[in-house]
Amino acid sequence: MTLSHYFTKYLPAIDAEMRQVVSPPHFNAPQNAPQRDTALDVYYGMLHYHLGWVDADFKPALSDSGKRLRPILTLLTCEAAGGDCENALPAAASIELLHNFSLIHDDIEDGDTTRRGRATLWTIWGRPQAINAGDALFTLAHIALSGMVARNVPPARRLSVRERFDQACLALTQGQHLDLSFELRTSITEAEYLRMIGGKTAALVAGACAIGAIVAGSEVAAYYENFGREVGFAFQIQDDLLGIWGDPAHTGKPAGNDIRQRKKSLPVAYGLDRSERLRELYAADPIDVAAVSAELEHIGARDYAEAMASQHHQRALNALNASGRDNAATDALRELANSLLNRTA
Amino acid sequence: MTLSHYFTKYLPAIDAEMRQVVSPPHFNAPQNAPQRDTALDVYYGMLHYHLGWVDADFKPALSDSGKRLRPILTLLTCEAAGGDCENALPAAASIELLHNFSLIHDDIEDGDTTRRGRATLWTIWGRPQAINAGDALFTLAHIALSGMVARNVPPARRLSVRERFDQACLALTQGQHLDLSFELRTSITEAEYLRMIGGKTAALVAGACAIGAIVAGSEVAAYYENFGREVGFAFQIQDDLLGIWGDPAHTGKPAGNDIRQRKKSLPVAYGLDRSERLRELYAADPIDVAAVSAELEHIGARDYAEAMASQHHQRALNALNASGRDNAATDALRELANSLLNRTA
Repeated sequence: MTLSHYFTKYLPAIDAEMRQVVSPPHFNAPQNAPQRDTALDVYYGMLHYHLGWVDADFKPALSDSGKRLRPILTLLTCEAAGGDCENALPAAASIELLHNFSLIHDDIEDGDTTRRGRATLWTIWGRPQAINAGDALFTLAHIALSGMVARNVPPARRLSVRERFDQACLALTQGQHLDLSFELRTSITEAEYLRMIGGKTAALVAGACAIGAIVAGSEVAAYYENFGREVGFAFQIQDDLLGIWGDPAHTGKPAGNDIRQRKKSLPVAYGLDRSERLRELYAADPIDVAAVSAELEHIGARDYAEAMASQHHQRALNALNASGRDNAATDALRELANSLLNRTA
Repeated sequence: MTLSHYFTKYLPAIDAEMRQVVSPPHFNAPQNAPQRDTALDVYYGMLHYHLGWVDADFKPALSDSGKRLRPILTLLTCEAAGGDCENALPAAASIELLHNFSLIHDDIEDGDTTRRGRATLWTIWGRPQAINAGDALFTLAHIALSGMVARNVPPARRLSVRERFDQACLALTQGQHLDLSFELRTSITEAEYLRMIGGKTAALVAGACAIGAIVAGSEVAAYYENFGREVGFAFQIQDDLLGIWGDPAHTGKPAGNDIRQRKKSLPVAYGLDRSERLRELYAADPIDVAAVSAELEHIGARDYAEAMASQHHQRALNALNASGRDNAATDALRELANSLLNRTA
């Protein structure tokens, strides 16, 4: 079975699991059913909107729901580690809901008005309700984990999953704290950058893989966790590269978008540390995007970031080899890591 | 042992448990220790500030930390149900951290600039960091529960506590959603009001008691849960009464404060449903606080709310009697319920 077969198999199951959690018991009752409780329609409707299932009038929609990368990793890891991926569905849904909770709050914190081509939640329902909607999704991400009971996941593993999940949440909020604090600074070191994305991106991908392996009862969950962490780093650095040198026709964003927003990406952290000219260019207002991009290439920041992405990618593959398992799901994990490194959007 | 003895015994233990959770491993190292990791000082510092342990410069402070009502209820309930209250300390800390997380976000959502006589977190560190600080405390509230491992709480109870905790979180976000949506309306029904405070206040107090009983392994946890829910309702309705007719010398707030802020409290919900004159007074801008207050008394809204608080209080005592236990901790729970009903601030 190739990666695309796995996607075809897993995506509808993940979606069904998420929908079951993010709905009140009556939510699928007909609109005109007697005694239908409507008090929380907006509460759940906002979450369904954010997840791409309905439009802003709560009419069914098929919007871009994101890549579902993390829950796929949970299911693949569970299967690669010898488990039954069905048992990992609650945790997979939980991880994806957690990721989406963080996006709702990130959008408020960053003042972003669009995501996946649609208006962000807070621009429609206001910041107070959007903050609370994020809290609701954070809660539902935890509640999704109780689905493990019906799947007969042993209690010790359920506890272990919950504790691992909370550690991922902690790292996530720490990474986001650093990211927000870096916005007030003119430069950051590479070490600071790595710590920030270690929390903001890599910790959740690592957690997604660790949890898949825990559900499987694997004794080598740490290898899968390392795989996930390295994939997370490679993924984020690749994101940084695309944010500066990506083809607008593929990324859907203007060329040099991250430079215009003065994001603290790896090429920029590398460059600000080494080039006085870059520091001057970066401080100028308005910023000369083409000149910054050229200077970054000139001082080797692009090559450096590409080498780093490649290094993390290789480490990810090494961790997978070290797991000692080789099966179709392991192959699919390799294929997924490769496709993330070579993506153009 | 009377209630005040229990407070004297419990409060330092709750505080110690909370501090252990809301700190990085190195947090108590000397400021000038070599290799001290300072990157997350502000992350934890904001939380310590909110919890009343430090001032805005992160210097130790002894500020008003709130009543610690919920964690006390968890410990008392555990003991009343025949358990060892030490084992309930992690859950008690967790409940109090959850309550405090909700206050951080509530303050942002409501735009409140002071709490417990100090500037709210968001007014000092800004909304983006404050939203994230709330998320951090929400996460740490969950992490506090893993302290049950060291206390040898059996795995089945630990899972049960976690699931009960998540249900309280869910009700909390639903109550807050309703509260925010009611702000946009000119009136609400009494049923809507009760549903809102059922989530926003009573669910967490009910959860605090249920969890104490679960840790104790009680087979009648439902009675303690009902006790908590009824105490929560009585507490909130008493709060509503104090917000309108409380003595400013005791409450620390101007007379009729809740009327000025047009809060949807029980007396107001009752009155708007019954008095055309009240609806007119409530719609006027500026609002005539004394006239609204007098009209509420005139139509019996105050008497009604007092009767309701008293009714919930009586139901709480009945639930406690139904638990079939009678011991010092049960007496203290009774005393606590009585003191909440008769408080003036």
